Amino acid sequence: MNKELLSQVLRQVAAGEVAAEDAARQLQVMACEDIGYAHIDHQRSLRKGFPEVIFGEGKSAEQIAGIMERMGAQESVILVTRVDPSKAQAVLSRFPQARFHSEARMIVWETAPAPVQGRGTILVLSAGTSDIPVAMEAFLTAQAMGNHVEKVIDVGVAGLHRLFRHREMIANAMVIIVVAGMEGALPSVVAGMVSRPVIAVPTSVGYGVSLGGLSALFAMLNSCSSNVAVVNIDNGFGAGYVASMINRA
Amino acid sequence: MNKELLSQVLRQVAAGEVAAEDAARQLQVMACEDIGYAHIDHQRSLRKGFPEVIFGEGKSAEQIAGIMERMGAQESVILVTRVDPSKAQAVLSRFPQARFHSEARMIVWETAPAPVQGRGTILVLSAGTSDIPVAMEAFLTAQAMGNHVEKVIDVGVAGLHRLFRHREMIANAMVIIVVAGMEGALPSVVAGMVSRPVIAVPTSVGYGVSLGGLSALFAMLNSCSSNVAVVNIDNGFGAGYVASMINRA
Amino acid sequence: MNKELLSQVLRQVAAGEVAAEDAARQLQVMACEDIGYAHIDHQRSLRKGFPEVIFGEGKSAEQIAGIMERMGAQESVILVTRVDPSKAQAVLSRFPQARFHSEARMIVWETAPAPVQGRGTILVLSAGTSDIPVAMEAFLTAQAMGNHVEKVIDVGVAGLHRLFRHREMIANAMVIIVVAGMEGALPSVVAGMVSRPVIAVPTSVGYGVSLGGLSALFAMLNSCSSNVAVVNIDNGFGAGYVASMINRA
Amino acid sequence: MNKELLSQVLRQVAAGEVAAEDAARQLQVMACEDIGYAHIDHQRSLRKGFPEVIFGEGKSAEQIAGIMERMGAQESVILVTRVDPSKAQAVLSRFPQARFHSEARMIVWETAPAPVQGRGTILVLSAGTSDIPVAMEAFLTAQAMGNHVEKVIDVGVAGLHRLFRHREMIANAMVIIVVAGMEGALPSVVAGMVSRPVIAVPTSVGYGVSLGGLSALFAMLNSCSSNVAVVNIDNGFGAGYVASMINRA
Amino acid sequence: MNKELLSQVLRQVAAGEVAAEDAARQLQVMACEDIGYAHIDHQRSLRKGFPEVIFGEGKSAEQIAGIMERMGAQESVILVTRVDPSKAQAVLSRFPQARFHSEARMIVWETAPAPVQGRGTILVLSAGTSDIPVAMEAFLTAQAMGNHVEKVIDVGVAGLHRLFRHREMIANAMVIIVVAGMEGALPSVVAGMVSRPVIAVPTSVGYGVSLGGLSALFAMLNSCSSNVAVVNIDNGFGAGYVASMINRA
Amino acid sequence: MNKELLSQVLRQVAAGEVAAEDAARQLQVMACEDIGYAHIDHQRSLRKGFPEVIFGEGKSAEQIAGIMERMGAQESVILVTRVDPSKAQAVLSRFPQARFHSEARMIVWETAPAPVQGRGTILVLSAGTSDIPVAMEAFLTAQAMGNHVEKVIDVGVAGLHRLFRHREMIANAMVIIVVAGMEGALPSVVAGMVSRPVIAVPTSVGYGVSLGGLSALFAMLNSCSSNVAVVNIDNGFGAGYVASMINRA
Amino acid sequence: MNKELLSQVLRQVAAGEVAAEDAARQLQVMACEDIGYAHIDHQRSLRKGFPEVIFGEGKSAEQIAGIMERMGAQESVILVTRVDPSKAQAVLSRFPQARFHSEARMIVWETAPAPVQGRGTILVLSAGTSDIPVAMEAFLTAQAMGNHVEKVIDVGVAGLHRLFRHREMIANAMVIIVVAGMEGALPSVVAGMVSRPVIAVPTSVGYGVSLGGLSALFAMLNSCSSNVAVVNIDNGFGAGYVASMINRA
Amino acid sequence: MNKELLSQVLRQVAAGEVAAEDAARQLQVMACEDIGYAHIDHQRSLRKGFPEVIFGEGKSAEQIAGIMERMGAQESVILVTRVDPSKAQAVLSRFPQARFHSEARMIVWETAPAPVQGRGTILVLSAGTSDIPVAMEAFLTAQAMGNHVEKVIDVGVAGLHRLFRHREMIANAMVIIVVAGMEGALPSVVAGMVSRPVIAVPTSVGYGVSLGGLSALFAMLNSCSSNVAVVNIDNGFGAGYVASMINRA
Repeated sequence: MNKELLSQVLRQVAAGEVAAEDAARQLQVMACEDIGYAHIDHQRSLRKGFPEVIFGEGKSAEQIAGIMERMGAQESVILVTRVDPSKAQAVLSRFPQARFHSEARMIVWETAPAPVQGRGTILVLSAGTSDIPVAMEAFLTAQAMGNHVEKVIDVGVAGLHRLFRHREMIANAMVIIVVAGMEGALPSVVAGMVSRPVIAVPTSVGYGVSLGGLSALFAMLNSCSSNVAVVNIDNGFGAGYVASMINRA
Repeated sequence: MNKELLSQVLRQVAAGEVAAEDAARQLQVMACEDIGYAHIDHQRSLRKGFPEVIFGEGKSAEQIAGIMERMGAQESVILVTRVDPSKAQAVLSRFPQARFHSEARMIVWETAPAPVQGRGTILVLSAGTSDIPVAMEAFLTAQAMGNHVEKVIDVGVAGLHRLFRHREMIANAMVIIVVAGMEGALPSVVAGMVSRPVIAVPTSVGYGVSLGGLSALFAMLNSCSSNVAVVNIDNGFGAGYVASMINRA
Repeated sequence: MNKELLSQVLRQVAAGEVAAEDAARQLQVMACEDIGYAHIDHQRSLRKGFPEVIFGEGKSAEQIAGIMERMGAQESVILVTRVDPSKAQAVLSRFPQARFHSEARMIVWETAPAPVQGRGTILVLSAGTSDIPVAMEAFLTAQAMGNHVEKVIDVGVAGLHRLFRHREMIANAMVIIVVAGMEGALPSVVAGMVSRPVIAVPTSVGYGVSLGGLSALFAMLNSCSSNVAVVNIDNGFGAGYVASMINRA
Repeated sequence: MNKELLSQVLRQVAAGEVAAEDAARQLQVMACEDIGYAHIDHQRSLRKGFPEVIFGEGKSAEQIAGIMERMGAQESVILVTRVDPSKAQAVLSRFPQARFHSEARMIVWETAPAPVQGRGTILVLSAGTSDIPVAMEAFLTAQAMGNHVEKVIDVGVAGLHRLFRHREMIANAMVIIVVAGMEGALPSVVAGMVSRPVIAVPTSVGYGVSLGGLSALFAMLNSCSSNVAVVNIDNGFGAGYVASMINRA
Repeated sequence: MNKELLSQVLRQVAAGEVAAEDAARQLQVMACEDIGYAHIDHQRSLRKGFPEVIFGEGKSAEQIAGIMERMGAQESVILVTRVDPSKAQAVLSRFPQARFHSEARMIVWETAPAPVQGRGTILVLSAGTSDIPVAMEAFLTAQAMGNHVEKVIDVGVAGLHRLFRHREMIANAMVIIVVAGMEGALPSVVAGMVSRPVIAVPTSVGYGVSLGGLSALFAMLNSCSSNVAVVNIDNGFGAGYVASMINRA
Repeated sequence: MNKELLSQVLRQVAAGEVAAEDAARQLQVMACEDIGYAHIDHQRSLRKGFPEVIFGEGKSAEQIAGIMERMGAQESVILVTRVDPSKAQAVLSRFPQARFHSEARMIVWETAPAPVQGRGTILVLSAGTSDIPVAMEAFLTAQAMGNHVEKVIDVGVAGLHRLFRHREMIANAMVIIVVAGMEGALPSVVAGMVSRPVIAVPTSVGYGVSLGGLSALFAMLNSCSSNVAVVNIDNGFGAGYVASMINRA
Repeated sequence: MNKELLSQVLRQVAAGEVAAEDAARQLQVMACEDIGYAHIDHQRSLRKGFPEVIFGEGKSAEQIAGIMERMGAQESVILVTRVDPSKAQAVLSRFPQARFHSEARMIVWETAPAPVQGRGTILVLSAGTSDIPVAMEAFLTAQAMGNHVEKVIDVGVAGLHRLFRHREMIANAMVIIVVAGMEGALPSVVAGMVSRPVIAVPTSVGYGVSLGGLSALFAMLNSCSSNVAVVNIDNGFGAGYVASMINRA
Repeated sequence: MNKELLSQVLRQVAAGEVAAEDAARQLQVMACEDIGYAHIDHQRSLRKGFPEVIFGEGKSAEQIAGIMERMGAQESVILVTRVDPSKAQAVLSRFPQARFHSEARMIVWETAPAPVQGRGTILVLSAGTSDIPVAMEAFLTAQAMGNHVEKVIDVGVAGLHRLFRHREMIANAMVIIVVAGMEGALPSVVAGMVSRPVIAVPTSVGYGVSLGGLSALFAMLNSCSSNVAVVNIDNGFGAGYVASMINRA
């Protein structure tokens, strides 16, 4: 339920085109709809400026499509995260305008392009080639939420000259998302170079004591640079979301 | 080394009042000074908009005072965190203009009031009475960095009406810092109410499976609200710092 | 061995219809039967008011059916938990009156409907769509044990208005089972609203630092609301069982 | 704010003895009072049938006394948990009618004896002598909340005949609280004997792999008896509270 | 290399039937043979009274057969543990006299029956049906090492009367192996009944906070009964082995 | 209640010197005595061949003395473990014949020397000087329980020639207790040399990743030698106890 | 970019064969090449004496081949680690001169044999047959980096005479790599025998409390021998690499 | 027992100055001396090129002095680590030539200066001021073992220009010891700059998720630079020791 839709209903009531009782019923459904296996929070885009995002893991293609259908009636951008290719194919057969980004395992369905809402550029940096899926999830989320986004891939701390080549781009970003697995050192180094907030995303890339990303997570939370805040392991979506909130004018 | 100081030196060179060689030597010291037990990074306020902050734990009163002295020559606001009362007393005997906030265990030394740099208000919420020290560390840091800051104490999720009384203040904040121990649920609830970034700070308050704050930390990283980013346990300073970066115009 | 059956045998002895020695032998088998791969505790329904429940995981379809057969001779309700569809099919081919609930992975075999034994309503709440299997396990268990049960699905803390819509139902329940993964915050919020016992069930839903449900578990044990007790991760059955014990008149 | 007090105010308004505006102001304070370092939730006894309990750890004697004073105006029973002897002495010098139970580290202040509200007896069992403080916290809490409570101390599983001597008392209890450290086996054994809910409390008693009570906690959550629910390590208060909720008629 | 074989070689040298140099060479091979992927420790049966046991996991059927061949030349009993059925079939096609016990995933190859070496009976108890594979591994190992062994299955602590039915057998055993998953309480209870050593084997049976057997392991190490010693999770073989060492006359 | 005492009472009844009812009452007290803060299990020495041992930690000197007094009426050897010097002094002032071993923090009170019950020698080995307290606890326990015990201190794996000097003593022991902290490697090495059971005791000696003894514990449970069983961290008493059970003729 | 190549370009510039601008462009590509999914660090062999190694896990065969192609233009030895057989086949179809070592899951592509750069011999020891893959990864890495390498397999601490047979080879090595799973005791024992650095590699071999290699890792870090340094679990490559650095003349 | 001493005894025997039997007895004591609470390994300096080092923690001043006395008869350099000031004073009162370094908590006793044995320079880098004690332990150990050592303090990754100022010194070192707490990122960055082995030492500096140094340790073991090997948390001594082994000519 975006502001447009709400204003429209209220104008209709004011104009006497819709009875108050009918409008009330209509608004109640618009606010929160119970479809058996989910309570769809249509109020969210009013309250938070962006509709609820569908977490695809643990939901069937049918459930995903059902929720998309209900949300599509009210929203112009819908995101589904953590979708595997076969589920995605099933969903896209019903929503052919939606697009599946296999690298990031995301479905993006835009009925209208998101207007740019951000103040500046969000930059996504990744430490290694294997961190690409998480970095792309952050990239696509931030883009779908109306931001100008750029990315630089594979600039880990074992060869800092690769990072320093992009020094200017780093200095000019409004928010920086840094994605890294293994020892999780990149956010500390990047944050030491700038006066902007850095959102660190640990990934589960690694083996042995990488502990499925816990080592990178703990390293990032212990960062000796103070302008670092952290999200859950592999949570590219969350990083893109919170970065959008920060970048919003 | 703030911008003022740097410009002044350069103007003197330009005006012929200072020889180029002398200015070079002077600038080199201003950039990074080795005082035996520490490398003071005077460039930091240039690079990051705020000087290095002194982490008091594990440093003697003498070491703290030594670093303050060197930094005081170039900066107008100096923060020292995690100082116990006896150390604080020793330090303040040398810097009587500095002020010790015992609740937050911080020393704040302002030779000039920090100009307000933030776009809006930073709000600090705490879940319980025992979280006050961490909340105050966040509050004082954000204030010292030139922000308008407000705080509401003891509004945990076991009695949500206490939180809802402050709904408006929450809706109007630019950034919200939420401090909570035990089950760490407050950031999820608050973040669900707004479209602004929430910086969550887990505290070590609790016993048994609170695991020194790890339970609260993990809960916050698992937040079902997407506009939450997290800092280390008890890291009120970091939360205040990153919130300032976000709030900066 | 329910009370009915025991009384019947004793009446037969009293009436001289059965010799004491024969009755003794018969009662001994009824108390505890050794069938090679299991000791069936027939006394349990006498001692605890409900027969032993068969934990399906790690047992073959044949073993499950074997135990059901022996128990069926003495009990009117038999539950099997954690059964996958193929095992269920094999079991149901021998007990066609039994019913498989695929969502909850449970077999319920009632030869007679369980008489309602509870004082009031047991309410099952779940935080998300993915928690449905665990919530259904709790729901079916409580129902099979003779309780009036209701459920509300997908009312997590990121949109509290969804929860508050059901405020009355929550206030009227005798016991509330709250099922949640990720940050596990829902039990604290619900428990803060009522003066009834809340049984919290953490689920393994989530990724990264959800740690297979440990984060939700720890959050629930740390609840700042005091009327919360907790069962093992994904243990919907246990929650339904203990809630039944509480609700029993 | 108990029901009595609320009714009295409303009767005065009805009788014209108090102006509506004055009553409104008075009721607002009665609902939730902000005293700087705490938001006192006076509504709690209305909502939950028992006033907020003061967690003494991390609060000064002065803060405790301040909260007691505000609550004492409205409640007839006030509990303070986790108070060390010196703090207790300071508090009792201001509230001489209150009583300090040193074993349980609790202050109980009853201006009127709590009317018995429970349906039956709550039984507290402890596995060892060292578990006494936690067992006593549970005992005193349940008693203060208006229950008939009994206790049996030091009946661990290494000598089951000690437990079996009390078989009848166990069979007759409405709710059983079982307190145990080390291997945490007692709740499973007790729960196997009865058809009533068992609230298990792990304690931090032990060394080495007792891991501060985590081993006992995990054992209890893994109980092969299904009528067991668990509270946090050393949380005798929580066990007494939830048992009271269960026992309430 | 058992004592028989060694004595025989030495007798041949003494009798002049074999040259000293040839005997030396022969004995050296008999002591420790390098077959590329393994150093076979033929001395072990001399040193420890039982030959090396082949740990099947992570070895190919070919490697297992290769080692069996070399050992078979010198030993009369050979054990292979942790063999899956397909590997077992491949191995048995080369050693048709060997026998595969699928429940315990063990191959036992006896060219001659092991003479009874134990002083008394070793009793294997298991807490549940799912613990059978580990219990059988212990049973078969102890049997192959020349002991009289008995077993009782599914006598967990939730129904102690099942255990007490076997009280006499328990009292008469020389060593007791207790196998249990979940809360791991059975060893404490059994050990409290006897004055014999109890070897506890935690199993990985369970879910959630069973943590793959860690909870049972920790509970057993924390046993309040002092005659309990513990082996690794699922290590039925080790329990059978150490019990044999204890039982040896 | 040892066998002597029991036989005596029964003989008196048989001789008509004591009435049956008086004997019954007397025996009941002898079996299990409730002294408020403890249930003393007098039956234990009948059931297990050795009286209950008093765990001193968390008990006051008064409680310890109280239990000793009751036990002293029936037993000839009483052990108290984990007693600090000041408590010990208070206890010994009441039982001057008892002896305090400060190194092992144990009180041993023998009214008559324990008759040797063991088949052979129990050998206690320790890896380092800092493991001495735990090694001594094992040594004294085994000695008090009627065994011939020897010990060798500081023979860690970093200099194996120190261990090999004692090869013969190791080969001749009936049971070997191996005490080690840090990497916990000594039990594997010793167990590889003999065909007798090895009881491994991890100690909390070390720093960093010694994790309070968990690393040593885990190493010992993973031992590649199969004749190793393990007790809790720092549990010298348990090792001495279980070794005595093994050594008993 | 090895020294040869760099010198050649510079010589061409000096000889006027190549224009300075062209050389600059050429050198820039040679230093760091961005191929979309990776930043290839061609400078590494200049800076570190050995080219970047390709970590195969999480990369497609196509990506691996793409990186090999770019690197092959400048380097004479290329390593790819953690390649499964099917990926390896796809890669080798494009680089038929490269060789796949299936045991170690490595591809080694040498266009010219690596000149021996090491001062002495690197010796690789493994504790068991299952540790072979990790040991071989270390062996092949050290060999490819120009060292003389030897190996001894399956010499665990449960039969030390197997190790002592190779005493001389151990004494003569310049660096020793010790690979072990389970209790991880071998490095301590080996390090106690020599005055050379020992690089310990824990493996994930084991079950139960081996915790995927964490137990072995912690044991090695706790080694009572001081000449031990440790690399990540299963990191044979890292051990070979750091041993080469140490051995380099 | 250094080589000098051994040769001297042998020369005396050869010259007939000492009888063979007397020499044998003398050499045996020189090899391994049992002084009750310790087995002194005099052979170690022969075997490993440096005498045993005394770990001071958990030893009394008297024990330390006793061991020093025995070792002093044969060695020219003796180190004692982890000594607190009061113990140090007691020890130095008996060995006035020894020197206590309070910062590093070490006693160094040199009767003759250690001859330089190293090939090049060992460089010690520390990330922060609080890491100084561990860095100094490494520094003094390496120096006492006959190396040329340099150090640079407080060059963490949040301000890389501080590190880069020392680029040349880093490039010229033979071995580099990097000491860091918190996120432990420094070793990766330094190792990326050089082709020499880096020994990483995690410290317990930090709070919250630093987990007493585990986070830094895990980060270091996960280093994306391959020339890093790691020692235990706070183990400056071990780092100095292993670096000496590497540097030895």
